[in-house]
Amino acid sequence: MDYLHGGDIYRNAVQYDFSVNINPLGMPPGCVEAAKRGVELCTQYPDFRGEELCRAIAEAEGVREEQVILGNGAAELLYALISCLHPGRVLIPVPAFGEYEAAVTAFGGKCDFWEIQEKADFRLEETFLEAIEGFTDLVILCNPNNPTGVSINKELLLQIAEKCEKTGTWLCADECFLPFTEREGELTLKHSLEAFPHLVILRAFTKIYGMPGLRLGYGLTADKRVLSGIRRCLQPWNTSIPAQMAGIQALKAQGFVEQTVKLVKDEREFLCRELADMPSGIVDKIYPSEANFILMRSPIDLYTRMLEQGFLIRNCRDYRGLKSKQGSSTGYFRIAVRTHEENRILLDCMRRLR
Amino acid sequence: MDYLHGGDIYRNAVQYDFSVNINPLGMPPGCVEAAKRGVELCTQYPDFRGEELCRAIAEAEGVREEQVILGNGAAELLYALISCLHPGRVLIPVPAFGEYEAAVTAFGGKCDFWEIQEKADFRLEETFLEAIEGFTDLVILCNPNNPTGVSINKELLLQIAEKCEKTGTWLCADECFLPFTEREGELTLKHSLEAFPHLVILRAFTKIYGMPGLRLGYGLTADKRVLSGIRRCLQPWNTSIPAQMAGIQALKAQGFVEQTVKLVKDEREFLCRELADMPSGIVDKIYPSEANFILMRSPIDLYTRMLEQGFLIRNCRDYRGLKSKQGSSTGYFRIAVRTHEENRILLDCMRRLR
Repeated sequence: MDYLHGGDIYRNAVQYDFSVNINPLGMPPGCVEAAKRGVELCTQYPDFRGEELCRAIAEAEGVREEQVILGNGAAELLYALISCLHPGRVLIPVPAFGEYEAAVTAFGGKCDFWEIQEKADFRLEETFLEAIEGFTDLVILCNPNNPTGVSINKELLLQIAEKCEKTGTWLCADECFLPFTEREGELTLKHSLEAFPHLVILRAFTKIYGMPGLRLGYGLTADKRVLSGIRRCLQPWNTSIPAQMAGIQALKAQGFVEQTVKLVKDEREFLCRELADMPSGIVDKIYPSEANFILMRSPIDLYTRMLEQGFLIRNCRDYRGLKSKQGSSTGYFRIAVRTHEENRILLDCMRRLR
Repeated sequence: MDYLHGGDIYRNAVQYDFSVNINPLGMPPGCVEAAKRGVELCTQYPDFRGEELCRAIAEAEGVREEQVILGNGAAELLYALISCLHPGRVLIPVPAFGEYEAAVTAFGGKCDFWEIQEKADFRLEETFLEAIEGFTDLVILCNPNNPTGVSINKELLLQIAEKCEKTGTWLCADECFLPFTEREGELTLKHSLEAFPHLVILRAFTKIYGMPGLRLGYGLTADKRVLSGIRRCLQPWNTSIPAQMAGIQALKAQGFVEQTVKLVKDEREFLCRELADMPSGIVDKIYPSEANFILMRSPIDLYTRMLEQGFLIRNCRDYRGLKSKQGSSTGYFRIAVRTHEENRILLDCMRRLR
């Protein structure tokens, strides 16, 4: 089995993990304690409805409780959505998170890939609208996109959602990284659930609340049939008690997301400045991320060279649309935005690669 | 959404939960602490391979590491197996755990139910073999069966497995309750994985290791294609770090399963003796369970009467094959075998129902 993600610290000698896009602040205060209290209750089954957590999410997101569905990470909901909709043709702008294609093909669907242009700095352009056709069963978008960190303009987003309603196409908007940006309020589609009944939004506690090991995500949609369809494809007890309790606590943490957004902005700018200032021959280009990670192009094998120094970064060669051109040694690499101290250490190491 | 299981303590005022079949001893020593240590590591992703836990399971079960697949509870693996095999026709002896039917129909399959005869004390008989036909894509068995606690004879089990190989039928053997019996070594099919390549065994940490809130189960099969097929239908990170760490610890707990088997045997015998000795009009019949729960028939609404006293027991009216006959008030109820103290309190309460 090939593993096409970052974070395989279990089979790499890693001192610094810049390969996964997790909040550098870790979990909000009180979450570890809440999860531990949850562990003590684990001789019971979890609440299969996750009522308390669903209510807290609905309140935090300004949606209705019955529009929320919990998942064992957002990834579980992606698979459940695909197994429930069973789409024949799925349109995915690439480069994109590899699990979209994996989930679609696991259930027998076919992916139509729309290549986002590097010369447009990987920003999705209006011509994408033409690719949504009557035969398109599902469009999967990530905003901001992983691995580029580039956002989709709100105007284009709304046009896509409208086009999907017209063509009867489901729209899955993966907003897992949106809370890291300064434009969450502007770019989210969560306030348009009723306007776009074909819309399903995926959100994760994993990234913004720094708890990938606990497994917790959620979906939002106004369509009751697809919600109950997803539920039918899932076991009743899919989220653990520690995950539910940590999630409830995370949503109580005042100012945590704001603090994260500020740190990520400052550190992303710091990293971009310093990366642009590297000695030549290390980084060719940096793409304009709004997220907690940065995509760059390098003329050297940055992945291997950094791993030798104990840094795990994301080699993007397995992403569609980011494969090296034949005969070229140029590659794409993604680094997470971490704390200032860690970022400084990474930059120091990169500078010495020449 | 109808919830057809025990354990909904979240929406019932319950002092004693006899509705779920969890180890009365709780988790083995050290598991709560291991899960808590796991919580502290949760800013990392879990090992998607779960290598350490798979190795420990393989060693404990005497199977090969590559024959083990981890699940977010055995229930997740049931759904993944169905979504992977996509069986058109599934043969299920009933009464049976309701999730089998729910999973089959969620993915568009049709269930053929084989009614196990009450007059045979709910023991599966040889005539069942004739029901396995060429068009049967999958047989799902639970041994010992839930909700009856009745085991399937080893000879019949082997005949079923052989018939399935002949007809090209998949066989899913749910052995979640087998470790509670005195005949695990005799009745398990885990040593016959290579002999029966169509066999998939489901096992849970949930029940025997008392950790339903953590979500952990596993599957065993010698068929590499079905294993990779199940993996393709699952997200990569389906088991949490606390679950993996508690599972590893559970398998280290010397003597815990033996202690459980002894307690369950003693207490099941105690309960059966006392139930048989009840004043008339409370319990009509008790079925010969080998598991950590007991099915009984009662002329009164035992569920409601016991809930009024703060005891949650399992009303079995939603089980196929256990529905009350029209005009009859007779019902079937299942109670878990708990600690001696709890069992005594339950019996005292039941006696006073007259």
